[in-house]
Amino acid sequence: MQRIEGGICAVPGVRASGVRKGKYGLALIAASGSAAGMFTTNKVRAAPLEVTAQSLANSGHLDGVIANSGCANAYTGIRGMEDARAMAGLLAGFLGTDEKKIATASTGVIGRYMDMPLITRLFEEAKAMLRSDASASQDAERAIMTTDTRVKEIAVEHRGVRVAGIVKGAGMIEPNMATMLCFLYTDADFPSSTLHDCLADAVQDSFNMLTVDGDTSTNDTVLITATGRTRAQVEDFREALRYVCIELARMMARDGEGASKYFETSVTGAVSVLDARLAAKAVANSSLVKTAVYGADPNWGRIICAVGYSGARMDPEKVTLGLEGRGLRISLVERGQIVDGVLSSAKEIMSGDTITINVDLGLGSGEARAFGCDLTHEYVNVNANYTT
Amino acid sequence: MQRIEGGICAVPGVRASGVRKGKYGLALIAASGSAAGMFTTNKVRAAPLEVTAQSLANSGHLDGVIANSGCANAYTGIRGMEDARAMAGLLAGFLGTDEKKIATASTGVIGRYMDMPLITRLFEEAKAMLRSDASASQDAERAIMTTDTRVKEIAVEHRGVRVAGIVKGAGMIEPNMATMLCFLYTDADFPSSTLHDCLADAVQDSFNMLTVDGDTSTNDTVLITATGRTRAQVEDFREALRYVCIELARMMARDGEGASKYFETSVTGAVSVLDARLAAKAVANSSLVKTAVYGADPNWGRIICAVGYSGARMDPEKVTLGLEGRGLRISLVERGQIVDGVLSSAKEIMSGDTITINVDLGLGSGEARAFGCDLTHEYVNVNANYTT
Repeated sequence: MQRIEGGICAVPGVRASGVRKGKYGLALIAASGSAAGMFTTNKVRAAPLEVTAQSLANSGHLDGVIANSGCANAYTGIRGMEDARAMAGLLAGFLGTDEKKIATASTGVIGRYMDMPLITRLFEEAKAMLRSDASASQDAERAIMTTDTRVKEIAVEHRGVRVAGIVKGAGMIEPNMATMLCFLYTDADFPSSTLHDCLADAVQDSFNMLTVDGDTSTNDTVLITATGRTRAQVEDFREALRYVCIELARMMARDGEGASKYFETSVTGAVSVLDARLAAKAVANSSLVKTAVYGADPNWGRIICAVGYSGARMDPEKVTLGLEGRGLRISLVERGQIVDGVLSSAKEIMSGDTITINVDLGLGSGEARAFGCDLTHEYVNVNANYTT
Repeated sequence: MQRIEGGICAVPGVRASGVRKGKYGLALIAASGSAAGMFTTNKVRAAPLEVTAQSLANSGHLDGVIANSGCANAYTGIRGMEDARAMAGLLAGFLGTDEKKIATASTGVIGRYMDMPLITRLFEEAKAMLRSDASASQDAERAIMTTDTRVKEIAVEHRGVRVAGIVKGAGMIEPNMATMLCFLYTDADFPSSTLHDCLADAVQDSFNMLTVDGDTSTNDTVLITATGRTRAQVEDFREALRYVCIELARMMARDGEGASKYFETSVTGAVSVLDARLAAKAVANSSLVKTAVYGADPNWGRIICAVGYSGARMDPEKVTLGLEGRGLRISLVERGQIVDGVLSSAKEIMSGDTITINVDLGLGSGEARAFGCDLTHEYVNVNANYTT
């Protein structure tokens, strides 16, 4: 797996641009090919998701994406649907295609109508800037950021196939991909059904194992478009896509709202993969574990406690628990027995900004990994006054 | 339902005492009668819970409770069981009964062994103080407090039957009763099975609808002992017990770790009671709703969003959403339509310290109410450095 420069514009056939006006931004991506998408599991699904899902179901082909930040266009009824279709229409008109081949996506405050005159002004600016270079990928990314603090993009080449993506999403991330927008591109030549199959696999191990605050948004969207310039083996593509999605999930956890530290929870020895997922997610999502990570408090009982209520099958006497970080790797519990004399090393590890929590349930061969961040004063700052 | 003074000592036949040394405390309660209990659903269950559950299963009778704070005696293996039995033995010896008629309970750090010499010293002090007056109830309560900031007790008389309780529990409260210890007493004369049945009902609508941070502890214990001095109608007792448990749950939410505000989520119109519970709990437990309450941010989209991912059956177009507080009552959404011009009133309500969120799903007759508090800077302070 080779990392390359250029973000999504590293994939031949992709052009991008993005503009911002304060809280509001608009990104355009032009790329034609077969496409697939995944959307939030929230029963309240924002208008742009309905429009995009219909387009994908219709043709399995996209010519472009138009995405805005600042207003989620969620819970906006018929007017919201009309606004989402009008957004698609703007880009379709410019690209000379059908609005049903354009995906739309939105992120921001829920329950507010779109400011369509503003969107139109931003669109006029952005369409003039559509291009294919590294700065274009970053402009598109910056245009859809909300509380994100940094650009999150990646491009790889793996056995001749390129896969690249940009992602936004800092809070409301859990479970099953929340307030995240992710636009993925490949130059491979696969039909929509293959793309969907590989995407579902990749999302399972990446965005669905990511948690910032336990809230699932109304607007999550992950889209992949294949520009079809290269013939590739499906397994090579699957591997590259999985890698890209996991790396993007890690970037999102590191950039979680108010996050000062990143931690991964690796669960092994579970009865099944589902058990491993449940346990890993429960630890990553525990407010008590997250505040302990923030405070570098080696209060490992909270980890065991989270595993205990996760729903995963466990036997407390078979659990082995360890911590890794700052070049150290220690065991706190060995098959149910508390290990003495390691709390100062634990404190040292917890003081680092990247921590791995290793939980071996000692029961089977199920494994999973969850991506999370600490819960900080800054998280409270960011979220206590979001709309005001 | 008449509120009376005296805490648990308002129930004839109850004596109590409590002592503290810094982080550590010990409470004793002497009261003989049939008894029942409910315990955490966490798969990691602390030693004292095992001891108490065995005692209750054995005889359905208790002569007393010995409870400590500072150490949870959880994840402590065989040594933990021995320590819990030794604690029961101390009180049993003093009261001249069998240790199997004594309940034990612990709260504090998980994965640390009990300091038994300290417990013994605290016990010697506390046993000399056992008595039946209002200050004794409060001493017992204070002895089991951890991050709690105030005494939480209640006593009522209802159609000749008295029910009273004390409770501790400030964080790790959700779902299904977490780091809470609750000791309930009544002078009614019911067998253990009736007590258990009424207790399960009461807990369902009170402690199980309470959430502070979404973590479920290893140590939750709710016990009821009936001293049998009065004949009562079971329905009168059931009503009084439910009232007492709901009021204690409200006190716990108000005293949630770092809480500055209290909010109730009332869900009506759900397809079933279970749907209503899911929706109410999801709103009460959402970090985004909780931070919005803290910041008095009328970001009501987060409420709709939480209902959307709660698992409750819903149709966004049938939802009515309102806020109540500071003497105001407003609708933000009426059957799916956003109500204009109410955001300033919403802000005013959200600025109060007691807020009710009313969600009518418009689908059926299922109702539930959840008890919660805001997520504040102080919550992060409290939990970032708990053991250190």
